[in-house]
Amino acid sequence: MSLDTHIEVNSGISTNRGWPGLIENYRAYLPVSATTPVVTLHEGNTPLIPVPTIAAEIGRGVKVYIKYDGLNPTGSFKDRGMTMAITKAKEAGAKAVICASTGNTSAAAAAYAVRGGMRAYVLIPDGYVALGKLAQALLYGAEVLAIKGNFDDALDIVRQMAENYPITLVNSVNPYRLEGQKTAAFELVDALGDAPDWLCIPVGNGGNITAYWMGFNQYYQHGKSQKLPQMMGFQASGAAPLVSGIRVKSPETLATAIRIGNPANWDKAVAAKNDSNGEFNAVTDDEIIAAYRWLGSREGIFCEPASAASVAGLLKVKDRVPSNATVVCVLTGNGLKDPDTAIANKINPFQQGIAANMDAVAAAMGF
Amino acid sequence: MSLDTHIEVNSGISTNRGWPGLIENYRAYLPVSATTPVVTLHEGNTPLIPVPTIAAEIGRGVKVYIKYDGLNPTGSFKDRGMTMAITKAKEAGAKAVICASTGNTSAAAAAYAVRGGMRAYVLIPDGYVALGKLAQALLYGAEVLAIKGNFDDALDIVRQMAENYPITLVNSVNPYRLEGQKTAAFELVDALGDAPDWLCIPVGNGGNITAYWMGFNQYYQHGKSQKLPQMMGFQASGAAPLVSGIRVKSPETLATAIRIGNPANWDKAVAAKNDSNGEFNAVTDDEIIAAYRWLGSREGIFCEPASAASVAGLLKVKDRVPSNATVVCVLTGNGLKDPDTAIANKINPFQQGIAANMDAVAAAMGF
Repeated sequence: MSLDTHIEVNSGISTNRGWPGLIENYRAYLPVSATTPVVTLHEGNTPLIPVPTIAAEIGRGVKVYIKYDGLNPTGSFKDRGMTMAITKAKEAGAKAVICASTGNTSAAAAAYAVRGGMRAYVLIPDGYVALGKLAQALLYGAEVLAIKGNFDDALDIVRQMAENYPITLVNSVNPYRLEGQKTAAFELVDALGDAPDWLCIPVGNGGNITAYWMGFNQYYQHGKSQKLPQMMGFQASGAAPLVSGIRVKSPETLATAIRIGNPANWDKAVAAKNDSNGEFNAVTDDEIIAAYRWLGSREGIFCEPASAASVAGLLKVKDRVPSNATVVCVLTGNGLKDPDTAIANKINPFQQGIAANMDAVAAAMGF
Repeated sequence: MSLDTHIEVNSGISTNRGWPGLIENYRAYLPVSATTPVVTLHEGNTPLIPVPTIAAEIGRGVKVYIKYDGLNPTGSFKDRGMTMAITKAKEAGAKAVICASTGNTSAAAAAYAVRGGMRAYVLIPDGYVALGKLAQALLYGAEVLAIKGNFDDALDIVRQMAENYPITLVNSVNPYRLEGQKTAAFELVDALGDAPDWLCIPVGNGGNITAYWMGFNQYYQHGKSQKLPQMMGFQASGAAPLVSGIRVKSPETLATAIRIGNPANWDKAVAAKNDSNGEFNAVTDDEIIAAYRWLGSREGIFCEPASAASVAGLLKVKDRVPSNATVVCVLTGNGLKDPDTAIANKINPFQQGIAANMDAVAAAMGF
């Protein structure tokens, strides 16, 4: 197979015929063949947006960009992994997939499963989840089952189901998910012309930092970039096992997407950090919310609270950013996933009961 | 100015350096100059997704695609118009913008205003709106004011404010919004290599169908397409003034984004329909919800209920689609804007209280 030829044809934003999805665009770098039945919602190709107010806060010629992965089809970076996991499940002849998840994974699993003509099962702990968090999975047609147990019980059961029934497990242990997720690094290099100097990223299970590092290395080895970034991983201070080196039994943070006490990809995440000369640091919930509000009200970018950990972290260690560096902060999920947090953190008071005439409105506006 | 040269350079998905936003990408077709301060969140460049189950339902070689504009930065097509409106406001020196809106317009106005360093004011009727609908605008930092009056009162007041104070009105009367929105037609031609045969689109105020028609004509006149589409506009049956030809005093539909009884762009929308040999048709709320559920549970695409009017309409008139035609249905907004409707229309029952062991779960799953 002429890998290099394929790479030349397929790299970058490759055509003016519309973005075909990340598997087609990065086919030469992914474990697919010409006969693999690609299941895609044309995920990936998400915007890379400069954030000048953050850059100004750091100064010294530093350039800062947001990789806004909340604009994937189901609203999070999970779509990158799920297009690969579901494609490979379909190739293997699976008729159903299963996961234990109360959030973005269940939405992505459900959407790609039905897209591929498969059933999707989602296991959750009874009474644990607000129905709003499952709205997507329910509308995509997932069969959601709540068990009288905790999240670890749910994980155990989905593993057993996958071993004993013709059902593919698409939780983070599925090896194809990282393959899909690594394409975000390709997109960064394609957009910037090289790797950034720093990659700031929220860390929960450790999968995404691992995948980005895989992607940066693969592209570097193929001569697509001239350098490798330092991987700067940020955890919530109440759920920071990779910072402390100690499992957290009861992780606590409002950043639910990274509320994980025992990361599934612990060793790989540590390797990514070490091999890149990077760092793990913790940010408090207050720092996360401050970054979340800053992004919304000063840059016009609305993300999930957990996503803002990358920007909160960058601001925390801003004095260590090399002068003139290029920094990318990853925002993993769409703010629309969590409207309650937006309302609770509104920037200005909501004025009500104003008389319906121009003068009264002008006065209320301060004119 | 060498218009044609610019068009060659800027058309299509033009670079492998990342999508620059729709103004930069389609600069030659838009009312901007080299010194215009572009305010962008890198909107546009949204996926064009085949929907094979819809195509199969029609048969006869018809190809059907979804233009998924819910993946714009604030979750709706309004971003296309707002990047232009706010850019021109900034160019004119405005320090603040105002609109009357309870939904997608307020979110887009707020995001682009703060992005451009301006204040955003949103006027709404008192007690009319669930706070969830305003979550985005509040997090973006809009100043939301509720008046003791109805929506028409709010519209009157924002017009007066714009006339009497240094504030730019960004409601649909702002002429730059349609200029930005027309770029969606450019993207369709760039992706398909020509215009589609049919463009199916939800119609409320009539602005988007007008903008698409402008875009298709402009591209056609520049030789970028070989044909023009038939514009197929669909209204909710409880809010269908363009179908009946009669203003609707109290429009009623669950598709709130098109619940409009007296469209602001009435004449332009009629002209687009007539000049394209198109049609206006009405779809019931039941038909809209059926299409909304179909898109979610069979194609993995989650949209606002109003968006599904385009697909509901296509299915309603499917026998009139020419054989082998290419059809594009526009989905204007992201389903995450309205989680309550998703939960109310879940596809499968939500099973609870299952014992925490594999056999119980397998039984509940039907194995």
